[in-house]
Amino acid sequence: MGWAMFKFEDHKTYQMPAHFGGWVYDPGLELYYHDTVHLNFTYATDGNRLADYLPEGFELIRPELMIGYMQGRKIDWMGGSSYNLIQICVPARFQGHRDRLEGVFVLVVWENKTTPILWGREIIGIPKIYAAIEDLHIFENKYFTNASYEGANFLSLEMTEAQPVEGQELAQMKTSAADPNIFGWRYIPRIGGPGAELSQPILFPQRTEIKSAWRGRGAVQWTQLKPEQNPTQWHIVKALAELPMIEMAPVTMFKAVVILKPAQARVLE
Amino acid sequence: MGWAMFKFEDHKTYQMPAHFGGWVYDPGLELYYHDTVHLNFTYATDGNRLADYLPEGFELIRPELMIGYMQGRKIDWMGGSSYNLIQICVPARFQGHRDRLEGVFVLVVWENKTTPILWGREIIGIPKIYAAIEDLHIFENKYFTNASYEGANFLSLEMTEAQPVEGQELAQMKTSAADPNIFGWRYIPRIGGPGAELSQPILFPQRTEIKSAWRGRGAVQWTQLKPEQNPTQWHIVKALAELPMIEMAPVTMFKAVVILKPAQARVLE
Amino acid sequence: MGWAMFKFEDHKTYQMPAHFGGWVYDPGLELYYHDTVHLNFTYATDGNRLADYLPEGFELIRPELMIGYMQGRKIDWMGGSSYNLIQICVPARFQGHRDRLEGVFVLVVWENKTTPILWGREIIGIPKIYAAIEDLHIFENKYFTNASYEGANFLSLEMTEAQPVEGQELAQMKTSAADPNIFGWRYIPRIGGPGAELSQPILFPQRTEIKSAWRGRGAVQWTQLKPEQNPTQWHIVKALAELPMIEMAPVTMFKAVVILKPAQARVLE
Amino acid sequence: MGWAMFKFEDHKTYQMPAHFGGWVYDPGLELYYHDTVHLNFTYATDGNRLADYLPEGFELIRPELMIGYMQGRKIDWMGGSSYNLIQICVPARFQGHRDRLEGVFVLVVWENKTTPILWGREIIGIPKIYAAIEDLHIFENKYFTNASYEGANFLSLEMTEAQPVEGQELAQMKTSAADPNIFGWRYIPRIGGPGAELSQPILFPQRTEIKSAWRGRGAVQWTQLKPEQNPTQWHIVKALAELPMIEMAPVTMFKAVVILKPAQARVLE
Repeated sequence: MGWAMFKFEDHKTYQMPAHFGGWVYDPGLELYYHDTVHLNFTYATDGNRLADYLPEGFELIRPELMIGYMQGRKIDWMGGSSYNLIQICVPARFQGHRDRLEGVFVLVVWENKTTPILWGREIIGIPKIYAAIEDLHIFENKYFTNASYEGANFLSLEMTEAQPVEGQELAQMKTSAADPNIFGWRYIPRIGGPGAELSQPILFPQRTEIKSAWRGRGAVQWTQLKPEQNPTQWHIVKALAELPMIEMAPVTMFKAVVILKPAQARVLE
Repeated sequence: MGWAMFKFEDHKTYQMPAHFGGWVYDPGLELYYHDTVHLNFTYATDGNRLADYLPEGFELIRPELMIGYMQGRKIDWMGGSSYNLIQICVPARFQGHRDRLEGVFVLVVWENKTTPILWGREIIGIPKIYAAIEDLHIFENKYFTNASYEGANFLSLEMTEAQPVEGQELAQMKTSAADPNIFGWRYIPRIGGPGAELSQPILFPQRTEIKSAWRGRGAVQWTQLKPEQNPTQWHIVKALAELPMIEMAPVTMFKAVVILKPAQARVLE
Repeated sequence: MGWAMFKFEDHKTYQMPAHFGGWVYDPGLELYYHDTVHLNFTYATDGNRLADYLPEGFELIRPELMIGYMQGRKIDWMGGSSYNLIQICVPARFQGHRDRLEGVFVLVVWENKTTPILWGREIIGIPKIYAAIEDLHIFENKYFTNASYEGANFLSLEMTEAQPVEGQELAQMKTSAADPNIFGWRYIPRIGGPGAELSQPILFPQRTEIKSAWRGRGAVQWTQLKPEQNPTQWHIVKALAELPMIEMAPVTMFKAVVILKPAQARVLE
Repeated sequence: MGWAMFKFEDHKTYQMPAHFGGWVYDPGLELYYHDTVHLNFTYATDGNRLADYLPEGFELIRPELMIGYMQGRKIDWMGGSSYNLIQICVPARFQGHRDRLEGVFVLVVWENKTTPILWGREIIGIPKIYAAIEDLHIFENKYFTNASYEGANFLSLEMTEAQPVEGQELAQMKTSAADPNIFGWRYIPRIGGPGAELSQPILFPQRTEIKSAWRGRGAVQWTQLKPEQNPTQWHIVKALAELPMIEMAPVTMFKAVVILKPAQARVLE
């Protein structure tokens, strides 16, 4: 039969399903999240155990686990829809042949919508997986949320005694949060055998414009899951839950505009 | 600092996040779905337009759109959990340098859980995306379901006048459904520029053991979405909804055990 | 057997299940919704048909259908959690033996959480029923949401061209929205026969403190459902969808604090 | 204005919103649940504490807590849709002026759909409240589910070592489960003051036709919630979780057709 067929075009970028068409690659692409609230928890932990989860090429800067909750709204590329995420990071340095950068290495991100999970994994190598994540509950100056999988709660986050951050301190916070280096690792398995088709460290640039901020006390509670409750994630929860919580730093909360720049992501060398 | 680090092992296979560990590659891996219900709708359409969505290397066998609903339960690799999917296919022939096979090319699959979406996309190139998909509603010999995205219904499926299929006809149905050739196209975009890092046709083997079957009348209703209702999928719905529904074949329903064999998937050449 | 038993206490109020304990009745009880966003759509319709849904004792003031969307957050009595609702009202006058009041009669309210549905129905006679209701999507100065039931969308709401309301006009809006008279009808069926155990008109006081407001163009779209898609609600959607949309007034949006005063509700006479 | 108005008709029964119309009262009404799976857990507990939750008029027969999970499908009055519930009961005797009956008193029922919650509460006095309840997970002869509220898991149920029940034992199980006396307590609060507008014990007849059954080992795990995690239910979970689990009986599972007969419900005297 002589029917026409779909052909890939060189100047376009695609996502599966690719054959319904792609879009012209735009190096200046910026994805605005106009209304975001962030809670950031950090605690000192055992650096030896933490480093077990850092791939070669990266080096731990401090033995700290960082847990960041984001409630994202007015997201342009999702037509003004919203999602929540919980991102687990460590402060890390990339030591490559060419690149030498400090930033945060993303161990895992839970998100409550599938669409951003797919883009994050396949384009920029951020290891996003699914969990139900509550919108922020705000009650009597207490801010709390939780993450669960098919009804089994594995992480609860809470901030109390929130006090506004202002003046010089706010200015410093704005500067230091503005242009983080986010490191991911894109891994696509080989078909028909072990090993990778694609395995590469990635730098993912974004911009965070803090509008207002608070500081307070934080509480983090992990609850381990049985393998059958979450066969593809329980080992991740176990690994994180078993890291000792040596000392909890003050938690910070801020409202911000976030601008993702996926077209400026690049493979680290 | 002298901390140990995560190293990939050659005999293992991984999924993002890879650094929490992989598992030994098992070429004989079989994933059992012990309790599945399937509804299969097929209608004749315009072959010229349909072929627009078929990548080079594939050829349309008949100008038909196939819509398969599956309600999957007792899924071993998900710890006995469940999910629903709607798979849109066309009968296609792969014409490669080496491979020459007939089967069905998967245009798109909507699923209502993220976990199988990730595996399907990254390992076997099946273009799975998210939608809310209702469990099968069964009322007065009518079977119906729908798919929606953030509250906007875009596909409704209905079977009426279901009659059991038995004897010789059932035997034939069992045989013809047993070992379908499922074709996907794995596409992972390049970072920092247009085009692909990975772009390859895939054969994904699975086995379907039909236990019982019915035949009846089918009705399919597409509802187009505004771009802002579903920015990453509306063009897919539009493409499918605009294909003419020339003639609807009888719909078949069956209960089955499905066994996926992802380790036997391979790149077509 | 001599076991103690649960006894109701006269000074307390209860909700099913009552036997786990009630709470001391507080006539000054105020329920704060600290963060709410409202979109209000109003259109002229056929007064004769509209009046078919107004129980005896009430009189239509104007032939108008009012559709109010509320996105409620920081709700104290729910521990800082949130829910969304769509309330359908008509401007009405109550003409009783004793009471003579103007306000709005609530035809139906859809809400996306069960807990407030139960309180609203049983305590204050507001006819709340369930639907999935999207958070407000905000994209390029367009605000939209929808309501659906088990994947079938039956109402879409959209505001465009939003312009801030300020000064004298805002002050007037604040005053006129501050203390609405909300009318409901509490109906509890008899057991073991037709008719009511309880059937009474209710006045439900609340306070709305508008913080900021916008005016724009509105669009309302009803989609009727088949009976089997929503057996207990399809007739409500049908009744409302069949009312002619004669002229749409400008839509208003505002951010507010809402204070419910359920203990001040009373039966109208 | 001379517009017509909605009038209640004597031979009809209504539910809020009543003014969209009721339906002719049918004393023979039967609601079929064509496809249900039940897991029943029973454990001996402290009778003195348990009796604290039993209203006057009822007497505890045995100091036992009964936890019944039902996964209901093919439900006619919901257009063939489905829901899950977890019902907490005690074996009880009603001692009234006229009625003297043995059955089970329902302490609380969690359900994952709002529509049946409303009917159950308002018509037959069954104290249904909302929770997310997982479909049954079935994996390696283990059957498990859980209930959670806004991501916080408060009850997990598990059956292992399931063995079929057959022959004489199955026949006995069928007989004893066929026509249970279900007791509820319908309570509607007064408006504008403490106390009840309606407070009455109810008998709710239903029929259970067991098709097949299994027996096995059961495990029940309660997890208490903080008040702010679930302000309207935490005290119920606390009351139940604090009851000692003295001895767990074998758990039974069965598949059945359930027929509810709400029109035959009656107030106990």
